[in-house]
Formats: sequence, C-alpha cells, structure tokens
Amino acid sequence: MSILVNQSSVLGPELTDDVEVALLSAVDDDHGGVIVELKEPMDPAAFHTSLRASISNWKKQGIKGAWIKLPIQLANLVEACVKEGFWYHHAEPSYLMLVCWLPNTEHTIPVNASHRVGVGAFVMNDKREVLVVQEKNGILRGLGLWKFPTGVVEQGEDIHAGVIREVKEETGVDTEFIEVLAFRQSHKSFFGKSDLFFVCMLRPLSHDIYPQELEIEAAQWMPVEEYAAQPLVQKHELLKYILDVGMAKIDKSYSGFSPVSAKAPFSGSQGHLYLNSRDLNLPRTVNMS
Amino acid sequence: MSILVNQSSVLGPELTDDVEVALLSAVDDDHGGVIVELKEPMDPAAFHTSLRASISNWKKQGIKGAWIKLPIQLANLVEACVKEGFWYHHAEPSYLMLVCWLPNTEHTIPVNASHRVGVGAFVMNDKREVLVVQEKNGILRGLGLWKFPTGVVEQGEDIHAGVIREVKEETGVDTEFIEVLAFRQSHKSFFGKSDLFFVCMLRPLSHDIYPQELEIEAAQWMPVEEYAAQPLVQKHELLKYILDVGMAKIDKSYSGFSPVSAKAPFSGSQGHLYLNSRDLNLPRTVNMS
Repeated sequence: MSILVNQSSVLGPELTDDVEVALLSAVDDDHGGVIVELKEPMDPAAFHTSLRASISNWKKQGIKGAWIKLPIQLANLVEACVKEGFWYHHAEPSYLMLVCWLPNTEHTIPVNASHRVGVGAFVMNDKREVLVVQEKNGILRGLGLWKFPTGVVEQGEDIHAGVIREVKEETGVDTEFIEVLAFRQSHKSFFGKSDLFFVCMLRPLSHDIYPQELEIEAAQWMPVEEYAAQPLVQKHELLKYILDVGMAKIDKSYSGFSPVSAKAPFSGSQGHLYLNSRDLNLPRTVNMS
Repeated sequence: MSILVNQSSVLGPELTDDVEVALLSAVDDDHGGVIVELKEPMDPAAFHTSLRASISNWKKQGIKGAWIKLPIQLANLVEACVKEGFWYHHAEPSYLMLVCWLPNTEHTIPVNASHRVGVGAFVMNDKREVLVVQEKNGILRGLGLWKFPTGVVEQGEDIHAGVIREVKEETGVDTEFIEVLAFRQSHKSFFGKSDLFFVCMLRPLSHDIYPQELEIEAAQWMPVEEYAAQPLVQKHELLKYILDVGMAKIDKSYSGFSPVSAKAPFSGSQGHLYLNSRDLNLPRTVNMS
C-alpha cells in the first residue's frame, strides 16, 4: 500500500513494515534535534502515518528533540501530534509549536518565555512638574488617580525605546531616555506568567500634550508636590519608592542603570547592557545605539 | 433536534433556529470577557455546535474577549475553535489558550509573555578567587572557557532566589544574594522571543565544590586575574563589562540594585522592587523577604 501525502512536505519514501510511507521534511537544529515546519494543508490521516514513520526514523538516527511548527490554518493536525507524544511548547497568534523528546533520558528542551515586560515613565520638566495621565480602562478607572504613563514593550523592542514610544503615544510628548531607576518583578500577574516592570527616567523634549483617545481620559503636567499628595500615592509603598528614587535622581544623589550596546560573546547577537555608568565613570551616552 | 453534549460543560439550553443547543459553561473575567475552561472530553461536532451557539449568545450580551482553555488531552477540539475565529494566545505543556474578540472594534487582548529571564553569578571569596565552571553542552562546549555560573529562572521564581539556586545546583556552593550589578536585554534569542539576563553578585557561604554531573564538566575557585586573562574574556566587550562592574563592586565604588519587597498598589500582588538602596540610604537588607 502506498500512502499519498502532499509532495511539498515529502523528503523521500521509506519502507516501513512493508508499507511505503512518506517522511516529513525536517531540518536539523543546533542541539541534535529536528524541526518540521508545515506550511501546506495535509490530510490528517496521511499526516499521522507520515509522522509515525518519521518518529521511528528519527529515533534510529539518535535525534533528541523533535519540533513541529503548525500554522493556525493547520489546526486539524494538532491531534495527531499529541497522540504521538508531542506536547505544546509555545503558541503565538499565527502558530502552535509542539515538541517531543525521543531518547529515554530527561529532556533538555528550553523553557518558554515566562515574563511580560512593562515600563513606566518618570518625566519632569524644569518647573518640577511631572507628566501624569488618567486611564480610561483597567483597574484604575474611576479612581481619579493621576499616574505616570505606563505600557508594555512590544516583541523585539528595547526597554529604552518602548518607554519613549509609550509616553509619546499616551501624551504626545517627545522625550529622551535617561536611566532605569528601578525594576520590579512580580508573579502570577496573568495566566500564571510573571511581570518585569522597569521604572525609567526620561527628559522631556516637548511641552504640549495630546492625550491618546482610546486609552487616556486626561493628561497634564502636575506639580510634583500635588502628585505626591494624592491619597493613593501616600498609601502605597511601591508608589512612594518610585517617587523617592525619581526625586533623588532629579536632585542628583541617585544613580540608576543606563544602557550600553554590547554584543553577546558567542552568538554575536546585539543587545544592551544596563549598568550604573556613573559609578563606572562611563560617559552616560557612550555606545548607546 | 436536540444535540447531546457532555453535561458537565452545560450552562443551560437555549433555542437557536429551532434547535436546542447546549451552551458552554463560562465564567466572567474582569475585563468584560468570558473564560471557558474545558475539562471533560466532548464530541468535536457537538462541541462545535455548542461553541457557535455560545458565541451568538455572548455577542448578544456584549461580551468582548472570549477565552477557551483546552487541556492537551482535548487537542481534538482545537480545530472547531479556529474555524469559529479563535486564535492562539499562548500555550504551556499541558494546555492551549485560545482567544477571540467579539465586538467590531480593535481588540485589547493582553500580550503573551515575551521574555525569558536568565541569571549569571559573580561569586568571589576572600582570596579574590571567582567561582567558575566549564559546561558540558551548548555553545561553549569544548572552547575551554571558564565562565560564571548561569541559568534560567523558573516559572514564578524570584531573580534573587533563582541565581542562588543555580549556583548551588551547578557547583554545590551556598551563597547569599548581594545585588543585581547589571542586566542585559537581547532579542530573537529563541523562536523570536527576547531575553533578559541579570548579572548578580553573591557572597559565598561555603567553600567546597560539587559539580553537577549532567551539565557541568568542571568547576573551581579561580584567581580573578587568571579568569580575566582568558583570551575569550579579553576579546568580548560584554564579558569585560561584567568583570568591570563586579570588581568595582568588590572595591566598594559601585552600587547595583538590591531588592525590597513591595506590594502592587491595587492588585495587592507581592513582588520585589530592585533599586539602588545605597543612594537612597536604605539598609541593604531592609524589607527583603
């Protein structure tokens, strides 16, 4: 019996138990594993047969981790993968990544992303007014709290770029990045995932405010004493710490972390190292790109 | 025609187009949406019919985001969700979370986790020897580099706890957390996800080394000059920065960030704020838990 499968995903035929079954096309990864990236539709039963034959073949070759990336259009192939012992590694809107460990040893599959990254902006002008907003939605709606602009960094976005973007989006104010003043790690903030929130000091480069319609009820420059006097700020330790570090920075007695660009030693990937450049006597903007 | 579905997931019957269809059991979330958490097996066709009726019902109620959590055992229900317009939000080994935005407006579904969090440990004893390892696997295998212990924080684990655990696991050495000296953000490190890597200073509380068999080829206390003289350390800017901040900290001219416990203002969730406690004149271990 010869089983027909979509030719675009066929590497070559192999005789298994007297049945000619097409193997799935796979590429090697850097860790002794293989990656199958399906793109074209397949009949689920034909896929299942090919998957079984491929697994058998991979085991003979000593393959460790086997990965299958299924675009969301091929959701009808998920079940066969799970039946053959694959589990979910991660998912994005457009695809699901499944993985399976073939040897009889403990797996060394890398973990999934575990943290969302948020940013908050301490922006003060030369009249000692801070840039504050009231939000239309979310947990603070209707509480009347004037708060610093905050947001979530986008996939692939640098922290120092994300915070400038968020301030611009929420208030229309242009800013320059100065430092990360502090950061906070918290857990179980969303579906068991954790948050890292970076409090950043920015210097304003423009004055006029244009609040974003969708998310922002109002925005203004507010004297910092008035911000600090709000009952909710007085009451909450975290907000007081953030105010304290911001004011200590303004008064030049506090040093946070600023970014220098630094390649990864072996992969060569670009990135930014955030460190206390004042204590290292580095010029603050050196190497930043 | 009456369609039978698993009773455990039935909220109640509703008449739709003269057909009595069981609706999916759902709970409200805090943002005007609903969450369906399926636990028991269902016939895929019956599930599909119930899902359609439920979506129609949710739309009438003005529901915004609809979430469906499918345990991996129910992989045969994924296809029906996708056919009805759901997309993947995130996945963990044991489940897949799908989501759909019902109104005709831009969605405000929160983003998925985007970063993995790694830690590296600068541990020096009173003879100015640093704790270093050689790894059995990965990109550094066979290069002969003696490097600081590193690892990935586990889900729900604090950075200051994760780095102590990694040092103990890789070398057997007990340590006390001092500070985050610096951190690095990089992108596209794994399946398009980003990394945040925290360089931490720890103080050793024990001396004897017991290298972990699975991952560590060798571990030792090495004079810091010898560590610094390695060609690979000399060559790589990032490794030199890390050495520089570590030595500046040892020589008391550098201040990194140390953790204070701080509740979130409104959700009340626990967490740690990492800040320059020296510049704020805070006792270093205050409030840390």
